[in-house]
Formats: sequence, structure tokens, C-alpha cells
Amino acid sequence: MPRWDAQAEERLRTAAIELFLQLGYENVTVAQIAERSGLTRRTFSRYFADKRDVLFADSDRLPDLLAEAVSRADPALTPFEALVTALADAGAMLGPQVAPLAVQRREIIARSPELQERGRTKFAAVARALSEELTRRGSEPATAALLADVGVAVFRTGFNRWVDDPDGSDLAACLREAGAELADAVAQH
Amino acid sequence: MPRWDAQAEERLRTAAIELFLQLGYENVTVAQIAERSGLTRRTFSRYFADKRDVLFADSDRLPDLLAEAVSRADPALTPFEALVTALADAGAMLGPQVAPLAVQRREIIARSPELQERGRTKFAAVARALSEELTRRGSEPATAALLADVGVAVFRTGFNRWVDDPDGSDLAACLREAGAELADAVAQH
Repeated sequence: MPRWDAQAEERLRTAAIELFLQLGYENVTVAQIAERSGLTRRTFSRYFADKRDVLFADSDRLPDLLAEAVSRADPALTPFEALVTALADAGAMLGPQVAPLAVQRREIIARSPELQERGRTKFAAVARALSEELTRRGSEPATAALLADVGVAVFRTGFNRWVDDPDGSDLAACLREAGAELADAVAQH
Repeated sequence: MPRWDAQAEERLRTAAIELFLQLGYENVTVAQIAERSGLTRRTFSRYFADKRDVLFADSDRLPDLLAEAVSRADPALTPFEALVTALADAGAMLGPQVAPLAVQRREIIARSPELQERGRTKFAAVARALSEELTRRGSEPATAALLADVGVAVFRTGFNRWVDDPDGSDLAACLREAGAELADAVAQH
């Protein structure tokens, strides 16, 4: 078994992204990705479970990443503060990993109903994970579920703004800003 | 063309719900629904586009219903207040229509990944409609998108609590409560 080769992974990913943008995600095969990258299908399988995995490997870790960040949050924080802190924490880890492809990735997903559905399923899993962790932290389950859905809304907003302006603030700052903006919008009378 | 027959519609709906619960949504055919209700497939087609329509006819109207409620909200209200008022307004109309089947409907959806996906697609459409209307009302598009997602979270929470306790408050009150609870959770320091 050859050892992990970051260059091969990168070549496969780049080839896949180019093809997804050119032909549309649904029309691309793993064989085409391998061919374009000058590698074999077998090599592809060593790095990715399937073509979907090229786009979602990082975000598949999101539920665990966010739940762990909630569990690490200062117990003195209110549930909402803990939630926003956890989003920013996870964002600080995730941002540098997903930054290079964030713009193309969003473009590919926007053109594919199948991937949009995958995205919604993923965010439902994120909400479940957040809700369980907020409950463990002491929130009523019903309040935890509400805040978890709100956390997903804050995450999506902050993430999109970050992708809109890749040279602007980092992901953690965009998530914190989105949380503060929601707090303002809800408080203002 | 025979005139609309509320009794026929009701018989078809009751038969469909019973079969969905007994056999699982995916396994039920329109022919079975017609047979159980003692009516024909042709009659079924007069009232419902397909078997999905038995469960979603009311909620398919939700995006328009909520957008219209936002557009009617007092211009003096903050965007979040307008949003919660609109949810309660729409809930007051929707509640009595969906109440008779709300518990069974939730049970059927919970057992079907296909229907859960339909539900998520529906809520994405609700969020888009709310976001457009909040923007028309004067919010920044980015803030409107965030508040729209939050509105969906409030709606789902309030709706679920109402279904949990059908003899308790009405849907409009449950939605208002969920909005107030979110405001509390966000404000508390």
C-alpha cells in the first residue's frame, strides 16, 4: 500500500472541480476525473469514497466538529453565546481547509439540485448534533432544538458572506458577526 | 364534470393516511387508496395530484401564505417582530385546516426519508419567500436571508410543540411563544 500522497489527492480534487464546473456535477464520472488527473480510478478510491466525497469530505465532519466546540464552551456562557462561540471555534479550524475551493464548490452546488439536497441533509445532521450537545449542556430539549436550527442559520449566513468576500474577514469572524447581527435584529425595538 | 365533493375528498384522505401508517408511505399506491375509500382512481385524481399531495397540499401554500403575512405586517415593526407576527398570522389560518391530521402526518413523515427530504425542500422555499418579502420591506438582503432562516426555525419549533399538545394552545400562540423564547435566549446575559 503506497503511503498517502497529498499531491495526488490535490491533483484529483482539482481535476474533479474543473470537470464539475465544465460538465455539471451529475455528468462527471470517476473515470473522467482519474483520466484528467493522469491517475487511475484505483488511486481515486484511495482518497475519496465517491465523487461526492471530493466536495463534502470536510463538511461531513461538521456535526462532530460543532458538537465538540459546544462541549468545550465556557459553562458560564448562555446557550446562545456558547453556540456562537462554538461556531466561531469550528470556523477557525474549518476555514483554512475549505478556503481554496470554497467559491467553486458553492458554484457547483448551486447548479445541482442533487447536491443542494445533500447540503440540506447535512445541515439537518448539524442541527441534530448541536441540539443534543446543547441539551447535554443543560438547555431544555425544545429550546436546544430551536437554538440549534438558529445556529445552522447563523452558520450558513456567516459562511456565505465569507465565501462572498474571500479577501475579507476570516470565517470565524464572519460567523461571530452573523451571530451579533441576529442578536441585534432580535433585540431592537 | 361532477362538482366538488368534500366528503369524497375526506374519504380519500382518511384512506390514504390509514394506509401510509399501516404499510409505509413508499409502499402505498393510488390504486390502493382508491380501493380502500370505495372510490375510483379517477376520483382521486380530481382532488389530489398524487399521493404526496394528500399530505402536502396545505403546506405547499406555506411560502405564499407567509410572504403575504409579512407584507401585511405593520411597517412600524422591526423585521424580527414583523416576522413573528407574520408566522402567528399564517398559523391562525393554517392551524384549523391541518389540525385534524397533524399528529398522523408527522408520524408518517418521520418514517419516510423521502418525505423528510420533501419537507426540507419545502422549508427552503419558505425561507426564500420570507427573505424576498423582508427585503422588499426594507431589510438588507443578507440580513433578510438570516432572519428568514431563523423564521423557519421558529415556525418548525412552534409547529412541533403545537402538534405535541393538540389540546393546548392554538398554533398561532405556539408560534408567538417560540419567537419570544428565541428573543429571550438571545438577549439573556
